Amino acid sequence: MFDDKNPSKTPLSDLGEFALIDLLTKNFTLKNKSSLLGIGDDAALLDYEKNTIVVTTDLLVEGVHFDLSYMPLKHLGYKAVVVNVSDLYAMNAKPSQITVSFAASNRFTFEALEALYEGLAAACNHYGVDLIGGDTTSSTSGLTISITALGSAQKNKITKRSGAQENDLVVVSGDLGGAFAGLQILEREKAVFKVNPNNQPDLSQYTYGIQRQLKPEARKDVIDLLESLNILPTSMIDISDGLSSELLHLAKASKVGFHIYEEKLPIDPEVILICEEFKLNSTTVAMNGGEDYELLFTVSQKDYEKIKNHPYLTIIGHVTEEQTGCQLINGLGVTIPITAQGWQSFNKED
Amino acid sequence: MFDDKNPSKTPLSDLGEFALIDLLTKNFTLKNKSSLLGIGDDAALLDYEKNTIVVTTDLLVEGVHFDLSYMPLKHLGYKAVVVNVSDLYAMNAKPSQITVSFAASNRFTFEALEALYEGLAAACNHYGVDLIGGDTTSSTSGLTISITALGSAQKNKITKRSGAQENDLVVVSGDLGGAFAGLQILEREKAVFKVNPNNQPDLSQYTYGIQRQLKPEARKDVIDLLESLNILPTSMIDISDGLSSELLHLAKASKVGFHIYEEKLPIDPEVILICEEFKLNSTTVAMNGGEDYELLFTVSQKDYEKIKNHPYLTIIGHVTEEQTGCQLINGLGVTIPITAQGWQSFNKED
Repeated sequence: MFDDKNPSKTPLSDLGEFALIDLLTKNFTLKNKSSLLGIGDDAALLDYEKNTIVVTTDLLVEGVHFDLSYMPLKHLGYKAVVVNVSDLYAMNAKPSQITVSFAASNRFTFEALEALYEGLAAACNHYGVDLIGGDTTSSTSGLTISITALGSAQKNKITKRSGAQENDLVVVSGDLGGAFAGLQILEREKAVFKVNPNNQPDLSQYTYGIQRQLKPEARKDVIDLLESLNILPTSMIDISDGLSSELLHLAKASKVGFHIYEEKLPIDPEVILICEEFKLNSTTVAMNGGEDYELLFTVSQKDYEKIKNHPYLTIIGHVTEEQTGCQLINGLGVTIPITAQGWQSFNKED
Repeated sequence: MFDDKNPSKTPLSDLGEFALIDLLTKNFTLKNKSSLLGIGDDAALLDYEKNTIVVTTDLLVEGVHFDLSYMPLKHLGYKAVVVNVSDLYAMNAKPSQITVSFAASNRFTFEALEALYEGLAAACNHYGVDLIGGDTTSSTSGLTISITALGSAQKNKITKRSGAQENDLVVVSGDLGGAFAGLQILEREKAVFKVNPNNQPDLSQYTYGIQRQLKPEARKDVIDLLESLNILPTSMIDISDGLSSELLHLAKASKVGFHIYEEKLPIDPEVILICEEFKLNSTTVAMNGGEDYELLFTVSQKDYEKIKNHPYLTIIGHVTEEQTGCQLINGLGVTIPITAQGWQSFNKED
């Protein structure tokens, strides 16, 4: 589990910037018709014909967003793509290109970056995305990765955060809290490893949570499903900072409130067990965990029959008028206002 | 000249990430028809109709690309945009959108980032670019800025690095070596300041070089000029790493060689004086200085009459067959092979 971060092979200073780019990107080929020209000129060229272009960007910083003591670089590369394409799916768009820039300190060898690019390539293949450019540079400390993802959608198919209407159903894909539960396990094992590096932990009972943390997937399948069911959500967002935080974003953009039912929250049994082990409230973890990269969306009541009992989708509540605010309703009918407790980068506790 | 880096005002931890974005971007408005939706959703939306989309990205790292002891944050913001739009002009495209992401350590206050965004806004206004998105996060040390710029061009107007033909003329805009000369002055004043913080240097004789380093401009005017002269370069690149390095890029992509005449290199008189003061060879500085953000391009001989003696443009040589390689020819007719000595991020000397 704990990869050797520094296999002391080829220092980056042995390669020039251009040779490094050539080596890291040699196995990437352009596959999408919209990718006219990729790496190798001052800029990449794209042609989306009449479609609307969708653009998103994310910055991942070592020590803030990832910890290489338990996050293998290949997984990090994969996750960096997932985080971005997830934002495009949240617009009901199809990703087609990414640019990848990184700044790496001299602690990183060529082989380490090669592992990062293996993960990027695996994700590009899985999501049908072309690597079309980027920038590579040294840093004075640590690794920073910046990805911009581009995609497209027909103009009338785009789903924004605004658009939720009173009485719409609130739907979430997959289940919640898994990535946060997995993080608790990894942080505990890191602490154990520091005390006793020879300890061989049995993590087999935590595989789901760990996978949700280390190798999340963006819900391309859900976007395809909605298309095949002929459902156009009235609003949509991906769950990166936690369900509570995303509900508040939808509420603000759509000028509505929400009633969410605690007993409807989809939580994997393993996540409940991890919560018990760590004495965490599983509802709190599901509401505020973050990094699940599930889709949260609202649909008209008329779509109820199409989605009820679908194994990928759970109806967790409904849209109310704005004055009601965002409320979590528990099994006893008690109403609790939803507040954002998700991850915030600039918090004092960091 | 030496701005207070840390005016100890509002710590970033007093603001949440979303409040910070709101505050920093409140004065930015969308102006381009192609910008459908900017900041505030999972992704931005663009519509380029039938034009080809041009995308470029750059990562700027404190301590590698900039030194805040003499680079005011407002200038840094401006330069960060220039670096990117310059790449789009090098494709003969018009920039229209940027995304800006940054990671800042707790050394930076809100007011410091506000200064950065003032510079970004000034450059967005000057180049007609809309800020459409980004990501903000904390970092464990220093400031990192990642910008992606998008623009468009008619498909048949795009100029790539490939396309230079034997006997074409080699043209450069503006003059060379100024940014490097300015950097020498700033580094010297920084060293003096460390010894005697009360010293008030008279930098009035170095204003051109310092301006080239601290507030470079991308050559939008040259792109407009070429259009008005009805000239389509056969190949083009912007000079960010030094003329030598860019000539080698054009040669490789176009499969040609170059004859460049030393006496034709455009160098400002102030730059020659600074070179004398620092005992630097001004040809070496012009060939390898970097960060000038001038345009280097090739045009057909038939365009000679249109560009000869133009104050913005200098013909510095011609294109030869590939086997000739890239050669600098001095006043005595001696031929010297051109090699890249430009800035490389991963060099051991760094």
